[in-house]
Parts: sequence; structure tokens; C-alpha cells
Amino acid sequence: MLGSTHGTLTSDLRARVVACGETPRDAVVHDTAAPAAVAAGELDVSGRPLYAPVPDLDRFFRPRSVAVVGASDGEGRPNTVITRQLVAWAQRVGARLCPVHPVRETVFGLPCVRRVGDLAEPVDLAVLLVADPLPLIDELADAKIPFAVAFASGYAETGAEGAEAQRRLGDAARRTGVRLLGPNTNLNAFERFRDDLEGPAIALITQSGHQGRPVFALQELGVRLSHWAPTGNEADLETADFLSYFAERPEVGAIACYVEGLKDGRAFLLAADRAARRGVPVVAVKVGRTAAGARTAASHTGKLTGADQVVDAAMRQYGVIRVDGLDQLQDTSTLLARARPPLADGVAVYSISGGTGAHFADLATVAGLRLPALGERTRRALHQWIPEYLDVTNPVDSGGHPVGDERGRKIIDAILADPAVGVLVCPITGPFPPMSDRLARDLVEAAETTEKPVCVVWGSPVGTEAAYRETLLGSSRVTTFRTFANCVTAVRAYLGHHRFVRSYSSPFDEAPRTPSPSFRKAQALMQPGQQLSEHAAKQLLRAYGIRVPREQLVTSAAAAVRAAAQVGYPVVMKASGPQLAHKTELGLVKVGITSASQVRDAYRELIDIARYEGVELDGVLVCQMVGHGLETMVGVTRDALFGPTVTVGLGGVLVEVVQDTAVRVPPFGEGGARAMLDELRGRALFDGVRGGPPLDLDALVEVVLRVQRMALELGGELAELDINPLVVLERGQGAVALDALAVCR
Amino acid sequence: MLGSTHGTLTSDLRARVVACGETPRDAVVHDTAAPAAVAAGELDVSGRPLYAPVPDLDRFFRPRSVAVVGASDGEGRPNTVITRQLVAWAQRVGARLCPVHPVRETVFGLPCVRRVGDLAEPVDLAVLLVADPLPLIDELADAKIPFAVAFASGYAETGAEGAEAQRRLGDAARRTGVRLLGPNTNLNAFERFRDDLEGPAIALITQSGHQGRPVFALQELGVRLSHWAPTGNEADLETADFLSYFAERPEVGAIACYVEGLKDGRAFLLAADRAARRGVPVVAVKVGRTAAGARTAASHTGKLTGADQVVDAAMRQYGVIRVDGLDQLQDTSTLLARARPPLADGVAVYSISGGTGAHFADLATVAGLRLPALGERTRRALHQWIPEYLDVTNPVDSGGHPVGDERGRKIIDAILADPAVGVLVCPITGPFPPMSDRLARDLVEAAETTEKPVCVVWGSPVGTEAAYRETLLGSSRVTTFRTFANCVTAVRAYLGHHRFVRSYSSPFDEAPRTPSPSFRKAQALMQPGQQLSEHAAKQLLRAYGIRVPREQLVTSAAAAVRAAAQVGYPVVMKASGPQLAHKTELGLVKVGITSASQVRDAYRELIDIARYEGVELDGVLVCQMVGHGLETMVGVTRDALFGPTVTVGLGGVLVEVVQDTAVRVPPFGEGGARAMLDELRGRALFDGVRGGPPLDLDALVEVVLRVQRMALELGGELAELDINPLVVLERGQGAVALDALAVCR
Repeated sequence: MLGSTHGTLTSDLRARVVACGETPRDAVVHDTAAPAAVAAGELDVSGRPLYAPVPDLDRFFRPRSVAVVGASDGEGRPNTVITRQLVAWAQRVGARLCPVHPVRETVFGLPCVRRVGDLAEPVDLAVLLVADPLPLIDELADAKIPFAVAFASGYAETGAEGAEAQRRLGDAARRTGVRLLGPNTNLNAFERFRDDLEGPAIALITQSGHQGRPVFALQELGVRLSHWAPTGNEADLETADFLSYFAERPEVGAIACYVEGLKDGRAFLLAADRAARRGVPVVAVKVGRTAAGARTAASHTGKLTGADQVVDAAMRQYGVIRVDGLDQLQDTSTLLARARPPLADGVAVYSISGGTGAHFADLATVAGLRLPALGERTRRALHQWIPEYLDVTNPVDSGGHPVGDERGRKIIDAILADPAVGVLVCPITGPFPPMSDRLARDLVEAAETTEKPVCVVWGSPVGTEAAYRETLLGSSRVTTFRTFANCVTAVRAYLGHHRFVRSYSSPFDEAPRTPSPSFRKAQALMQPGQQLSEHAAKQLLRAYGIRVPREQLVTSAAAAVRAAAQVGYPVVMKASGPQLAHKTELGLVKVGITSASQVRDAYRELIDIARYEGVELDGVLVCQMVGHGLETMVGVTRDALFGPTVTVGLGGVLVEVVQDTAVRVPPFGEGGARAMLDELRGRALFDGVRGGPPLDLDALVEVVLRVQRMALELGGELAELDINPLVVLERGQGAVALDALAVCR
Repeated sequence: MLGSTHGTLTSDLRARVVACGETPRDAVVHDTAAPAAVAAGELDVSGRPLYAPVPDLDRFFRPRSVAVVGASDGEGRPNTVITRQLVAWAQRVGARLCPVHPVRETVFGLPCVRRVGDLAEPVDLAVLLVADPLPLIDELADAKIPFAVAFASGYAETGAEGAEAQRRLGDAARRTGVRLLGPNTNLNAFERFRDDLEGPAIALITQSGHQGRPVFALQELGVRLSHWAPTGNEADLETADFLSYFAERPEVGAIACYVEGLKDGRAFLLAADRAARRGVPVVAVKVGRTAAGARTAASHTGKLTGADQVVDAAMRQYGVIRVDGLDQLQDTSTLLARARPPLADGVAVYSISGGTGAHFADLATVAGLRLPALGERTRRALHQWIPEYLDVTNPVDSGGHPVGDERGRKIIDAILADPAVGVLVCPITGPFPPMSDRLARDLVEAAETTEKPVCVVWGSPVGTEAAYRETLLGSSRVTTFRTFANCVTAVRAYLGHHRFVRSYSSPFDEAPRTPSPSFRKAQALMQPGQQLSEHAAKQLLRAYGIRVPREQLVTSAAAAVRAAAQVGYPVVMKASGPQLAHKTELGLVKVGITSASQVRDAYRELIDIARYEGVELDGVLVCQMVGHGLETMVGVTRDALFGPTVTVGLGGVLVEVVQDTAVRVPPFGEGGARAMLDELRGRALFDGVRGGPPLDLDALVEVVLRVQRMALELGGELAELDINPLVVLERGQGAVALDALAVCR
């Protein structure tokens, strides 16, 4: 398998399974995913990039020569520990090490130079073991050293002053072109990687060395790792850079990330888009599900964590598989790196106990996995080796794995041969060596002969058994889990990833580059720093082709009566003012008004209430009554990390409490808008309630897309938009915005 | 600690931490939880027991002599394997073994008798290794052998015929008084238990030997196990019997269960009630979250699995901690067995990396754990040993555990001394022996000096490190987890268990024993096998004091006009008939009728529609219009396992799709009814919507309790009851049942 499929590096995921060979040292690696539709440097209508180049990090990860600035071999000095590690690493990989120190003659026997400028030979990477790396950046640039790693801490993680120092460091890197890892990082990239392991590898990106350690330790369980990027404070090189670099590496089967905060939301999306185009799975732990976690993480790295629902949506949009624990990160990355694309989406369970099969089937089904009944032919085959009274439909209960002959292996092969089966899972809850040793061997051998992933759960908490340590972990074709839950999570992620990749089309290819005709009209309505009145906000919607009721703003009872006649009875009357919220609660909305005298009464009452409440009005709105429909809401909120985001949800009184919303980060297409609606718990309401007619879902999708357009075009000027309620009428009747709130920046 | 607190076995949980000494061999063990209010044999109004005695299983688990019927030492025979295991077990524990075989003279050198009746000495337990144990039961009874274990399979797990054979076996056991374990079980109860482990133990109940194996294997990780009951098909002895027996055992700190199906819902509740009264935690995996799991489990054991939402509720009502995976069962049981009652509900996190602390804090907070800020005094103390720039609020970030002196231990002690801290968690994501070895030692030593539980997460996937295997697992005062998730689950269960126990009062003490005056009135309305008309169903509600609108059933337009005048305008008119459902969808409900002519029109229209739809009517209801309120529903459903259950939820059109309901198994008190409402996602609606007035929650609680009374009293005759909508009005205004559906059995 290895090295045999160097050919096409396009959509064939198996092409990623190649040996880690030499690659050209261009400025930018061969960019197989360069989207034809997007030119480098092109911007979308919000002024944000549609394309990010892939940094060439080959020389960073495999430097031929490394300068160590601040190298030491003095007893008890922290720099000595690091220098010693680098010396050992250099010997191992055959790199040259060049110590730099102002006074030392040699370090660990290697000749020292006093300054970077004194280095006699070209150097790929400088490791900066100094308290203030800033003054060195220009020296590195002068010496044409392309990469640096800065260990120093005391930057953004310590507060505003440190953040300013970090900004200066980043600026220096950008100005000179020296690509800098850190500050506040370490040598994880230059640890001892096992080179005896086969198959596609995991590439690891972490913002904390300690938190990456368990993933790195997977090598001790036989899982191949190719890289580890400990990004630290990300003054220059960030998670997104490594993500896109790894997505282009042929030996990388999956990318595992541990993220505390992102530096640049758009850069992350573009990198994730690259991985999605390339079909490379990205699995991520992202701290910040809660305010507590976000705050602690921010104080650890000095990064923004963003609103978690938005981070979650952004990851889902680009197929990034978010998991909660490092154990899930390990297990899911391992399966995704190793497993070839599925030939079917069915999961077959083989167990030596009916209880085990039932338990696993239960958890798998809760998680949405499909356990198809095995075909008639398969079942007949299985009953050659399994008594008739045992159920082999799926789960297959063998009542005990046969060990005396080839029957056990035949059972496994027969299940794997069933065309409905995409994945085989064998949960081994308790080891019983006379049986489980043979079972483990049969599984490993069967896995060698199939394209289908074979997953095993080794349920013993002890974990020192030979069948586990030697047989199962010795195979790169079998993925072995320790819990049902982690196996289910990984298998679901695996099937979901390939389903996602098959239907993925990049939203950046379709993202608008030039303003729509609506934009000019809308701009004229914006009032910087102000909240627009309901009437003005509705004009903004109208500018973008979103339907609002016929309405007139009036400032006298007589005008109200004339307006009502023009709008058509029955009408709704509402107080209108720039700072008005909670109109219903204040009694500032009157519905079902059917006569001129009622109009006059309502007008006076609204004015009286507003005066009593001390609310400033610009008038009273006389609006058309709109027919019955489902109350929804569509809005725009600015996220600190991702900029304007679009939210859709059920609106109205009851559902406000039940909180049913979905959010998307632009750009997204019609498919994205529809997927968003599918996330709503109340999605079925659009199909008709209690025998009622289906509702105009298409109209809602259209409103969502128009609101996205507003968010992109007015992004810089619009702080917040909230259309609530947006009434979705019967199919074919459209959707009408009954109220809107807009705040300008 | 051990053996020092034999004294009071009442509410002091620490009293459970005693050595496994001798206990008296009474017929029923000393019943510390005997509820004064309930006499043995007393029944509630539904005819079900309010009390279950605790079977004395001492001689079962520690028999002095065991007869093995069907004993064998013949080469290659399955019975030989079992006999050999029993011989070894008997030698280990000093029990006598008496082989029984029709022709053999000796088995493994032990003299054989031909029949049970030939046994010369009293025997405590008979192990039945025969294909059909039924004929032996009378022989055992004659020989005064109190306990038997039946290995034979082919009973309920194989279908109706087997179920019938199983019933006969159970009947024989009940008739003779021989307590039978099995059929379809094994010798797990007589495995090799480690007797060198300290502290409170886990007692294990499983319906599958294979699925219990990992919990049993915990002993290899230093966790004490006292018993294992493999209940098999439960023809006689069932999960509930072992649950109540273990709840009374002083050495048992927690009971771990693996349940595929329950034999008798009420028996389970009574046993769980006993454990709750005794404060003994019960942790359970219950298969059957999905239909797939339930079906497979049923085919494995031949047991009912019950509606999962009901099982879930029943467990919650009695504080049974339901978990999904066997790994969670192990980890949660271990912590709950070992940890003393909490002194505070705050969780402190100590980590050697800020990222690790942030990540753990994030997952803990999502799960509802509280991480209080450590006190000013604690923080000052910590900063003696931790640099000022590191955050020690909670999580405490030491930036690396100090190893050169006593500082590390002092840090741990200072955190444990904080009065807000109930639990200390130290997640060690990656081992770094120079630091983590010392950290592990410091944690183990600190744990010896505190009442507060110390939890460690050993995050390395390798798990062969000495600090883990020897230091951490060597301590029974520290509980060591492998994943953040399992630690969070266990700590939440631990704090939740003690919160539950502190406020627990048994609903069986308060359960009604005699019918209410409503019962006779209600009985007269029941029509066996029929669905009642809306009108009759409402009379049923009225009999139980549940408010319904003023209404009259009429059969002519003229009568309708008279009725409307008496009910008072505006009125609602509805078609009424015994088989009528979905009235709204059919157009058979007319609201807001304000005049006699409208009444006449509506009457004719309803009759026409009913005729067109072919619906049989018993007349038309003319009903009072009820004011605005929140639409809810309250209902009764029969569960196959637990009998009548009570459901409450949001009613009405929108929320029907959002599906917001809670269920309870009777009996439950007012507190239970309120807890039920607190489970609703839309609970906040009762506090008032958008500035509206708060609603009459008390009235809804009262309706729920009255419906429970109906469920208990009419349980045998009522197949289904559905009050929907029940409109809950403003506080003080009550709740009104606008519609009701009742089906008699």
C-alpha cells in the first residue's frame, strides 16, 4: 500500500496514504485545492479575503540547520535542557546545530558564534531562547533565516502590556517575512516521532504543550503521528497556517487540533475550507463552551474565544468535527486518519454475547448510526457456523467466538462481505484469553483483507492484556477503543465526514464580490451610532427585497384615519420611535382595528401611553394586518471573532422561552440556509401544523439569504438586526416582516 | 477507620465503612430502613405492595456447604470446567463441596452421592448443572436446601415455550420457598474476590456475565468488590432482591447494576426506595434507550424493557444514577463507594497547566458543576508557593507542580482546606515523570488526611506509567479516572446523590391506601372497553375535583340556544361523540359564538360536517369560553412495566411539535409533582410571558396530583387519559380542562 499511490492528489483520499518523502521547497507548496474561481488576493463584498495561500513549512518542520540563540550547556540552566533536547534531535535527524551565544566558545562541544550575523552557513530555523526576541527578528531577516521559534513568555497571556509587546513581535515578523512560531511555545515540533509506523498519520496542532501530550503519546499505542505544531500565542504563525499546510501533506490522514482561542476567524474558515475541499478530516477540541472555560482559556493564551454557538456553527459549516475531550480527539482522529472512505453507511456489530451486542446497538442507535439487517445470504452463511437459535440479523451474536478452527474468521469475513456493511464493530467487553486472544487475531487478520474499517472496543479497564497491547494495538488496520461511547463518536464522525465531503462545495467560490443594487439604497438609510425606528428598519428590509406590511407613519389622528383607508382595514397601529423596544409589553401595539373611530381612539391612546412612559416617538405606524402564519425571527449579530453572523429561529411568545435558533457564519449558500432551518427543533412546523397547510419555507430561505447579503454589504455599518416576528405564510404566500430592530455602528 | 464505626446504621453514611464481618443468619436481615408508617403486606389503593422484605442472602453468598448436582470431572465436559471452578472456590473460602451424580463414585476426589436426598449433611446452596432443573426443586425443598443456582438455558430468551417453562420453574421456587438464581446464569457470585482491599466496596448486579466482567476487573485496579449477582433470567430471585439485600450490607458503599430488562417494576421501585432511605448509591446501565436496543435486549433475556422515558423517570424518582457506558458505571460506582458525604458542593481544580485547567473547568461547568472562587485567605496562601502572575482563583494553575520541597503538598492542602471546596480534581493530562510522579505522591498523601474526595484524571492513553499503576491506583482514598468526561460524570453523580439523599422522603409512606370519595362517582362513569365521549370524560374529571368549563350536551339547535343562554355568551360549540378525535382538524370546534343565531348556524354546521365525515355524535357541547392562559396537558398512560404513569407537558399547537413533557411513576407527592414541572424546558412560561402575570402553577400541581389519584384508583379500569388542553390561568385563577380523552379498559 505504502508509496504505491503517488499519482493524483485530487479527490482520491487514498492518495494521501503515501510515504513521507521529499517535497519541493517552493515558497508555497503545490496547491492542489486552488479554487479556480477565486484569485489570490481577491476580496468579498465585506472586504475580507476569499483565498489564503498555504505557507511552505517544509523547512520549518525539517530544517537542515538550526541556530540556537541563547544556547547553553551550563549546569541547572533551563536553556541547557532545551539545548540538550535540540542536540539529540539534530543527531537523530541529521541536522546541523549552530549555537549562538555572546560569550561561550562551545556548547555541548559544538562551536558557538557570538551573533546571528556571524553564522557562516545558511540556516533554516532559529530557536530563540532569549527573554526578548524582538530585536533579533531583523538580524534573522538579514541572515535570510526563514523561520524562528520564540520561547519567551510574558506576552498576551499576562494582559494589555504583554499584548502590545506581542503585537510588535508579530509586526516585525510580517515586515521582515520571517515566519515566527510563538512566543510562549516550546519544542514539541522537534520531539522524537516514531518512523516505524505505517499508514496515514495524524498531524497535531495544539495551543498548549501539556494538552497535546496524550495525542502525541498515541504513538506508544501504534498510531502514526507526522507533525506537532505547538502554536503558543500565535504572534505570527497561527492554527490556520498549520491547518492548511497539513491539509496539503500527502502523509496526513487527519488533523487533530486543541484550540483555546482563534486569532483570526476568517483565516480559520479559509483553512478549514481548504481541508474540506481536500477531504482531509479535521477533529478539534475547542475550549470555551462556557463563560468559565472561555475566561480561563483567554487568560491562558490571551486569545479571543468567540461566542460558542458561533464557533460551533462555523466548525460545522466546514465539516470540522468538534469533540469535547482529548480522549475523543485521539480516538476520532485515529479512526479518521486510518479508515478509507466508506463503501456503505451501515454499521455491523459482532459480539460474543447478546447483552454486549444489545448494549452497543442501543448506544449506536441513540447516536444516529444505522445498524442495517444483514442480507439473507449473509445470515444463511453465518448460520453455518452460528447455532440457529442465536440472532445474526445485526448485532450478530455468535454466543462465543469459535476458536478451534477457521469458523471464527469466516464469521468476520461474512459480515464484512455484506454490501450493507460499511463498518464492523466488535465490542469485547471482558477478556477471556482462550477466546478473546483468537478473536483479536482473527479481527486483525480479517482487517488486512478488507477496505472496510474494523473497530474493536477493548472494554477491560485493566489494559495490560496481550490481546490488546500486542495483537490489536499492533495493527494499523484495526482501530481499538476503550469505551463504547468513544467508538460510537468516532464511527459517527467517520461516516459524517465522508458524507460531508461528498456533498461539499465551497461557499467562498460563490461569495458576492461586488455590492448589490440594494446597497446604495440601504446606505442612505443608515444612521451611524443610532438605533433606527421601526419604520426606518423596515425601509432597510424593503431595500433588500424583504416584504414588510403596507404601512404609513403618521403624526396626527386625522392622518392615521387617511392612512388606514389607504392601507385597508383591518389595521394594526403601533407607536414608532428610534429607541423603542418591548412595544407589546408597554401596550404600544393595537391590533384588529376596523373603523375610523377606533383608529382615532387608538392613536390617542398610543400617544398617551408613550407620554406616560416617557418614550420619544417619531409617530404612529398604521400597518396592514397580515394573515395567519408561523412566527419566526431572522437576525444579524456581530461576533468578536467571525464578524456578522445570521441567526434564524422560531419567534413569538411561547417559543421565545423554548429558545429554538440556529446560526451561520457568512458566506453560505442556499444549501447552508436550508441546513440551518433543518437544525431547528420546530422544523416540522413548516410542514403544516395539525393538518394545516405547509408553510412557505422557500420564502424563509430567501429572507435568510437576503439578510446574509445585508450582513455582508452593511457589515461594517450594521451592529445588529432583528426581524421578529417574521411571519411565514402558507406555501406560495411568502413571508412578511412585521417588526424589525436595526442598530447602526 | 475500618471497623471503628459499627454503631448506628441509620443515616450516617460513614457507618457503611466497616469491615466485612459476620452477620446474623436470620430469615430477614436486620431491616434498618423498615418504614414505621408501612406494615409488611400493606397495599396501596391500586392493590400494589407498599413494602418489600429484604431476602436474607447471607447463606447464598457465603454458603458453608454446596451441593453440585451434575458434578463432573470427565475430560472435555462443560460441567467439569464449572465443577473445577467450584472446587477451587470451596478450598479458598473453606466451604464443603458435595458432588451429586447418579453414577459417579467421586468427583475430583470428593465422594459423590446419587441423589439430593442422599446428602448426609445440611447444605446451603445447590448448584444445578442439569438440563432441566424443575424436577429437582422439590427434592431441594425436602432436603431443606434454601438456595439454588440454575445454569440451564433455553427459557424465556428463546420464546414463548421457554417463557412457559421459566414460569413453571419460578412457580416451583415460590411454592417450595427454595430461592432460585437463574436459569441461564453462571458462577460469577463465586469468583475470586480480592480480600486485601480497603474501604467501602462495590456490590455488582448484572443480567449478563460478560457485561459485568469489566466492573469485576476493577479489583485489578485496586477497587474493592464485595459481591457479584449474575441474575440471568430471574425466574425467582431478581435484580430488586439483590438491590435491597446489598443496600443493607454494611460493607457495601455503592451498588452497580447492568440491567437489560426488569422483571417487576414495583419490586424495583421498592428496592430502590430502600437504597434511597439508606443513602446507598445505586448506579445503573439500563439497555433500551432505543427500540433497537430494547428489542435485542429482550431477545437476550426474555424480559420487558418498558418505555425508556418511564424507566428514566422511575430511576430519577428514587435517585438511581443512570449512566450509558460500562466505563461510566465503573468510574461513578467507584467514586460513590469511596467518597464520604460532601462538606460543600464546590469543585476545585488544580492543574499544572493553565490550558488543562481551562479545559476541565469548561466541561465541568457545562455539566452543571460549580467551581467557586477560592477564598481570599486560600489565594494568599497559594501565592506563597505559586507566582503572582498565575491564576489561583479556581482552577488553580501552579505553572508546574513544585517537586524540590514541600510546596507542592502545601498547595494541595491549602486548596482542600478552603471551606467552599467539596471535591478536589487534579487533571494530569500528560505524564512528565520528574513532576507527575511527585504530584501523584503528594495527592495520595494529601488524600489520607482529608474527608474530601480527591479525584485525579490520568490523561495518558498509555496507562502503564508507574505513577498511575502504582501510586494512584495503590490508594483507595484517591479515585483515578482516564478521561475528563468520566470524572465530571462521577463528580456530578456524587454531589447529586448526596443532595438527593438529604432531601429524600419515601413516597410509599404517603401513598393512599383507601379509595377517595371520588372513586365511587368515577366508577359509575366507566364504560369497559370504550372510549368515553368528551362530555363523559369531563364528568370523570369533575368527579375528581378537576375544573371543566360550564357546558351542556344538547341534541337540537333549540336546546343549544337555551344552553348558550344558561352557560353565558360567548360560547364554544363542539361536536361530541365516543370515538371523536382531532376535532379541530375536522372543523368540529367553533369558538367565539356570541348570539343565538350564530348558535343555530354552528349547530347545523357541526351536524353537517359530522354526517359528511361519517362521525357518530352523541350531541353537541355548548361550553363556556375560558379566559387566556397557558395551554398544557396532563395525562395517564399505562406502562408495560410500571403500570399507570402520569405525564404533564406544554399543550397547544406549537409546543406539540417541540415536545416538552415530563413523566412520573406513581406514587409521588407534591414535591415530585413540582420537580416534574421543573423538568419542562418551558417551565419559565409559568412565571409570566413578556411581562405578563405569573400563572397558577399551584393549580397545575393540584391537577397533576388529582390525576395521579385517578391513575391509582382507576388504574385497573383506565387505559388512557389525556387532558389537552388544560388551560392554566393567572395565579389565583386556577386551571381548566378544555378537552379530555378517556379510554376504559
